[in-house]
Amino acid sequence: MFQPILRNRQSTSNTRRLSGNTWFMKKRLFTPGPTPVPENVMLRMAAPIIHHRNPEFMEILQRVHEDLKYLFGTTQPVVVMTCSGTGGMEAAVSSLFKQGDKIITINSGKFGERWGELVRIFTGNCIEEKVEWGSTISPERITELLNEHPDALGICITHSETSTGTASDVKALCAAIREASDALILVDGITAIGAHEFHFDDWGADICVTGSQKGLMMPPGLALVAISERAQDIINNRKGLPQYYLSLKKALKAHASNDTPFTPAVSLIIGLDEALQMLRAEGIENVWHRHAQLAGACRLGCQALGMRLFSKSPSFAVTAVWLPEGVDWKQFNKTLKTRNGITVAAGQDDYAGKIFRISHLGYYDELDMLTVIGGLERTLSMMEIPLKTGAGVCAVQRAFLGD
Amino acid sequence: MFQPILRNRQSTSNTRRLSGNTWFMKKRLFTPGPTPVPENVMLRMAAPIIHHRNPEFMEILQRVHEDLKYLFGTTQPVVVMTCSGTGGMEAAVSSLFKQGDKIITINSGKFGERWGELVRIFTGNCIEEKVEWGSTISPERITELLNEHPDALGICITHSETSTGTASDVKALCAAIREASDALILVDGITAIGAHEFHFDDWGADICVTGSQKGLMMPPGLALVAISERAQDIINNRKGLPQYYLSLKKALKAHASNDTPFTPAVSLIIGLDEALQMLRAEGIENVWHRHAQLAGACRLGCQALGMRLFSKSPSFAVTAVWLPEGVDWKQFNKTLKTRNGITVAAGQDDYAGKIFRISHLGYYDELDMLTVIGGLERTLSMMEIPLKTGAGVCAVQRAFLGD
Repeated sequence: MFQPILRNRQSTSNTRRLSGNTWFMKKRLFTPGPTPVPENVMLRMAAPIIHHRNPEFMEILQRVHEDLKYLFGTTQPVVVMTCSGTGGMEAAVSSLFKQGDKIITINSGKFGERWGELVRIFTGNCIEEKVEWGSTISPERITELLNEHPDALGICITHSETSTGTASDVKALCAAIREASDALILVDGITAIGAHEFHFDDWGADICVTGSQKGLMMPPGLALVAISERAQDIINNRKGLPQYYLSLKKALKAHASNDTPFTPAVSLIIGLDEALQMLRAEGIENVWHRHAQLAGACRLGCQALGMRLFSKSPSFAVTAVWLPEGVDWKQFNKTLKTRNGITVAAGQDDYAGKIFRISHLGYYDELDMLTVIGGLERTLSMMEIPLKTGAGVCAVQRAFLGD
Repeated sequence: MFQPILRNRQSTSNTRRLSGNTWFMKKRLFTPGPTPVPENVMLRMAAPIIHHRNPEFMEILQRVHEDLKYLFGTTQPVVVMTCSGTGGMEAAVSSLFKQGDKIITINSGKFGERWGELVRIFTGNCIEEKVEWGSTISPERITELLNEHPDALGICITHSETSTGTASDVKALCAAIREASDALILVDGITAIGAHEFHFDDWGADICVTGSQKGLMMPPGLALVAISERAQDIINNRKGLPQYYLSLKKALKAHASNDTPFTPAVSLIIGLDEALQMLRAEGIENVWHRHAQLAGACRLGCQALGMRLFSKSPSFAVTAVWLPEGVDWKQFNKTLKTRNGITVAAGQDDYAGKIFRISHLGYYDELDMLTVIGGLERTLSMMEIPLKTGAGVCAVQRAFLGD
């Protein structure tokens, strides 16, 4: 919703500057990270900075630590690291494993692929299982894999695969893994935490990573990593490659005294405190329910616009849809962005130009779904794609209100 | 769109706090003043304050003075006063007239009534013409009035009557007045400037007043008053009741050197500079066109929801509609506000509880009309008023996109 400040008088003119209806263009973000940041969170972060060894900050960090346990469903530490979600994934792999350790990774999209890249770098022994994009791995196949590789020390899975808008049944996968093996379970929860039901302790995960710019409704800059008891033991006794900044051992040690091993992103942690209070106040079950509802309405809206869903198991965080037949992605995206002010995410890799992705992860409400589907409908109409005007927005209203 | 900062941990709980779908409630303002303030304007106002005798500020004020001339369609001064729009109206009446002066006022709503109140206080000789709410006065009736009162020194009219969502044909009214009389023409342009076509010089107005929190997309706090050459002569030679802060003579004198007679609201004037640059960049004809389009879509959306329009001559700034038969305003407004986060304006005086008013004045775009009509539709549905789900939002989409 932000427009650069008009400083240069020379840049202005009396004619329309954009091809849309107005010169100013309200910008509306529907990408699966960064996601929109609530106004009260932005205001908290705009307050004068405080020092990170200040008791006021330590108190905030302590509250953040408690609230993160609630969010992840754990009594174990969830450490706050100043890095992106990928930094959190690397911290887990490099802190738990050593050169030669055999690790299974499930690759059903860009982010599953990333687990493989990390494992190959840090252990050099990666069993990567490829799964068709838009699909998920079954618990049965997981069991087979573990039976084929009884020496695997860890298995890396993805809860909500952002690149394909696909959610896997992490509860069932964890149960299958625990049944078949003692392998450590590393969960990429980056776009799942805050959107999908998750119980770190009950489901028996060992690591779960998320990033601040996702369901936590924050700008990017923080990774949050939940660590099980047995993972803590391994991390604390680990003798592997040298590591420093991304060491979970250091993070755990500092966590015990509500501290961080290095200077943290103070204002982001203060903002996170605000955002976590919002999530706690809403109640995590309600937060999950809201995401399920928004995702359902978004899918119905897309289908009413004649767009097919991409995923066989749609995520509640992001909806991936096929571009309508014959529609050029560049022209579509340009019309959506410059004439309707709406930013969605493009398809990646093989699906670039074929699918696109709509986020409903974080600070979104039901009227936002009306806006994004309305904007897509406007875009198709402006491109003269035949469709019944109002079909998309009607479907969204019906999803929430009934017929 | 703003939610108070959650400071008090005791106030939070894991249950839903609001009756809507989420705990947080995005707040969306659709009132005809204050109107939403663009993010870049808010950021300019948040910058460190500067002194009002500083050359940097004088330069800003000079640019504001120029841009206001463009906005009002005049080569004459438009003074910036630190007060509300009513303060600007009072400044005009008290600076132009003296005790005993006969002034005609047209009262077709709350704000036309205000002209009469001011005139009665400052001259004590008010000829008030009452017009049914929702209607406007005809040029013919204006001519009759002036013929009945050839000694009238001024006539006060309202361009867009906010209380009824009704626009009068100021061009035709000014022509009729100029034809029949030398009376000074005072125009309340408070919700019209920036929404309706207006040409101060060409139409022959003598005073036009607006407020910052209307079409100018600013917070309240400033009145802007355009003053014709002959009005300037009268003001500068006036010998009437003592006046000081609201003296247009003082304001005009300071204006000549790009200054203000008293300490102005510095940050508001800096914000106004930003907002005026946006309006200049869009182009005033485009701004008017946008308001006409938004108003049209809003009316169609309301009608599709089964609501009757209140005004016989609808304003482009605000749409007044009758509540559907049998709907209780308090319950309706509560549902709209607390379950949908949308604030509209209530009916006033005799129409309290019978009509309500939706603003599309200032920083609004087409997707905002989808939001407000969608929110009204949700509200009626939540109140179990029978209606075809999606009818309202469909009508809005069709208004902009065609069938």
